[in-house]
Order: sequence, then C-alpha cells, then structure tokens
Amino acid sequence: MQRAVVLLSGGLDSTVTLAHAISQGHLVMPLTIRYGQRHERELCSAKEVAKFYDLKGHVVIDLDLKAFSTSALISRSVPVPERTGAEEIGADIPPTYVPARNIIFLSIAAGLCETLGADRIFIGANSLDYSGYPDCRPEFFKAFQEVLEVGTKTGVEGRSIKVEAPILFLTKAEIVKLGKRLGAPMHLTWSCYKGGALACGRCDSCLLRLKGFREAGFEDEIAYEVRT
Amino acid sequence: MQRAVVLLSGGLDSTVTLAHAISQGHLVMPLTIRYGQRHERELCSAKEVAKFYDLKGHVVIDLDLKAFSTSALISRSVPVPERTGAEEIGADIPPTYVPARNIIFLSIAAGLCETLGADRIFIGANSLDYSGYPDCRPEFFKAFQEVLEVGTKTGVEGRSIKVEAPILFLTKAEIVKLGKRLGAPMHLTWSCYKGGALACGRCDSCLLRLKGFREAGFEDEIAYEVRT
Repeated sequence: MQRAVVLLSGGLDSTVTLAHAISQGHLVMPLTIRYGQRHERELCSAKEVAKFYDLKGHVVIDLDLKAFSTSALISRSVPVPERTGAEEIGADIPPTYVPARNIIFLSIAAGLCETLGADRIFIGANSLDYSGYPDCRPEFFKAFQEVLEVGTKTGVEGRSIKVEAPILFLTKAEIVKLGKRLGAPMHLTWSCYKGGALACGRCDSCLLRLKGFREAGFEDEIAYEVRT
Repeated sequence: MQRAVVLLSGGLDSTVTLAHAISQGHLVMPLTIRYGQRHERELCSAKEVAKFYDLKGHVVIDLDLKAFSTSALISRSVPVPERTGAEEIGADIPPTYVPARNIIFLSIAAGLCETLGADRIFIGANSLDYSGYPDCRPEFFKAFQEVLEVGTKTGVEGRSIKVEAPILFLTKAEIVKLGKRLGAPMHLTWSCYKGGALACGRCDSCLLRLKGFREAGFEDEIAYEVRT
C-alpha cells in the first residue's frame, strides 16, 4: 500500500478527497493544520471524519498565523462577506483569502511525507465552484510540483512526492455526487466560514455548498440558519 | 522604501543577509519561525540581532513540527553528527535535514509579505559551504519563485514577491567578509546545531563557520568547546 498524506480541514471538499484516496487503496494519513482559524468548528469535523474512517495517527499541526491579520478567516476584525447568491462568487479574491495558505499547507504536508515515507499528497482544492483563491488553480499545482522535485530530499534522490488534487476540475455538484458514491461522511463536515451553532447559509462557502447539493439532487444533512 | 520580510534564524548566514537587506535600503521586517527546533539558543540570538538593529515588529511565528521526528534538529533521539573536518560535509544529505524546511519558511514569509504589503523575501540560504540540503540550491529558488507568481494574490494581480538569496553563491569566508564590511553583529549569532552553553565546534554548522572565519582571516568572537 502506498502511503499518502491527505490534507483534511474538516470541510466537504477535503473529506470527499479523503474518501477518494481511501477508495484508491492508499494508506492514508490525515493532516490537519490548526492555523489560528476564526473558529475550531471545522477542526472538530476533521477529527470526526478521521474517526469515522477509524484512521490512526491523525496528525494535527499547530501553526500560529495570527500575524496574517488581513484575512477574515483569521482576524475577527475583518468581516466575512455575505452574499445573496452564489453567482457573485469568484469574480475577485475575497477577504477570506488566507495569504499563501495552500503553499504553506502543501509545504508542511511535503515535510510530513518525507518524515513518514509517503509519496503522495492529496488536497481538496477546487478551481471551478471556488472562492477565487489563486492557490486553487491548476497552474499553481504544476509549479508546486516542480518545487517538490528540486527542493526535497525525496526529489533529489530520484523518487518523487506527487501532489494529487482529484476534485480540482469538478463542480461542487460533482463533488457531492462523488462523495455520495464513495459513502463519504458529508454529514460530519463543516464548510461555513463562521463558527456558529448552525451554518450561516450566507457566506461564500455555504452558498457554494448549498448550490452543489441542490444541483446534485441530494439533501445537505447539516443544519443551516438560512437555506438559500 | 521597499518593505522586505527577512527570514532571521539567529545564525550567521541570516544575520549577514539581514545586514545586506538593510544596507540596500529596505524597510526590513524580520521573521523568525519557532518550529520546535532542538534548542532555543538561536531564537535568543535572533531577538538580540533584531534588537541590535533596533527593528520594530520582529514577527515570531510558532509552528509545531514535532511530527517531523526523523530530523536531528527536531528530535532529541536523533544524534547530531560530529565530524573531524569540514571537508566531509555536503557529500550526502545529513540527519540534520528538516524536511521541506525552506519551502515551509518561504511559504510563511510569502503570506506575511502579502499581509504587510512587502514585495521581497530575503533568505540566507547558501549553496557552496553548506550541509547539502536540497532546498538551499539555486534550482529550488527558481522553482519557488514561479509558485509565488502563480499561487499568490500578489502574483495574480501582476505585482510580484521576489525571493532574494544574496549569499547563495558566496563561500562561508566571503559571507564572513561581507558581514564584517557591513558591520553585522556576528558576535550575537548562533550556528551550532546543539544548544549548549558554548558552541560545540564539532557539528557541521560549527565546522563550516570556523572554516569560514579562518579563511576570511577574522576571529570568530563566540565561545567554543573546541576550535578545530
């Protein structure tokens, strides 16, 4: 079995990605990074998802990014935008952008791969129904792959750590369908940018998720304040 | 004045790099990452160096890499190699390699640049008198630059965060000479991989440093257990 580090935030996309990696026969090692995000709700989901699959050795790494004070996902003084529909999303890079987040996460995942002897990183990035983040685009993953080839011991030794982003080109509806097909525990996941008792139903992340379930023809089993 | 984030470990190379960035007229913002390294000695040096230059806003970011348990710089159960001479160094990647360290550090520095509106990262990597780490080589920096172009908001908006590694092609002796010329506080720096009261004089880092001072014709003012 090939070992694979799977970045698991506790959201829908990373959970479906984890389900995919498991279905491919990888020995998966989930990695969650607690980076000072606005709320701990999605971290709880990450733990529940890892427990659902009975995965041992869920690695949680603390990274204190409170210095990244311009991001609405880190600083409580920057409001999370609310919109009236998913159609407005993705036209520009919103304040929920965490500077260089996927670069940082993939770098840490690469270091963990080298430590654990894994040769693959799975990341649930998506470039279609997404918030417009630059580090979710295919050209970014291509460039980062080159960094791993030339900048790691594994790469220099002629082996390779491959980054896999299996849902990069799927719509949110297709991700939901894939999750259903694989039996992914989507009811345990948390996507809302806010950390309330219920998902808000108004932030970009909620809007994209609700649209995805609607278009896929499945009910989203988590509870919302408002279902748009 | 251009803002620049300078990765400052507290060692000789990063301190001379900081001195260089200051001499070039940049408004420098030192960034130190406390990643669970074997000892805190170099972190104290980083703080003293920042104080020497009266730099406000020294950012220290905590990143808990104890999961990277195969590295001698993180795990106390992995011994730091001792050698009899600097000539043996660099033939292979030693156990002091921290997987993906410079990739992780540069990623965090990039995120901080975007937060602070800086357009430059200075890093004291060196590819000549060095320990053989893959992420200290010019091909790595070239690949990482491309990641910044395509994977950050700054890059997508047509501006750029440039990585500068001004001592990449200098010998350790040339780094010492540059430090002397710039008045860098090399007496405050710490290079030893161990965290004793005195530098050990036997690890790769001490050997390379001592060789550099010797060849440059200057005395290294820090105290050693053994001077080879």
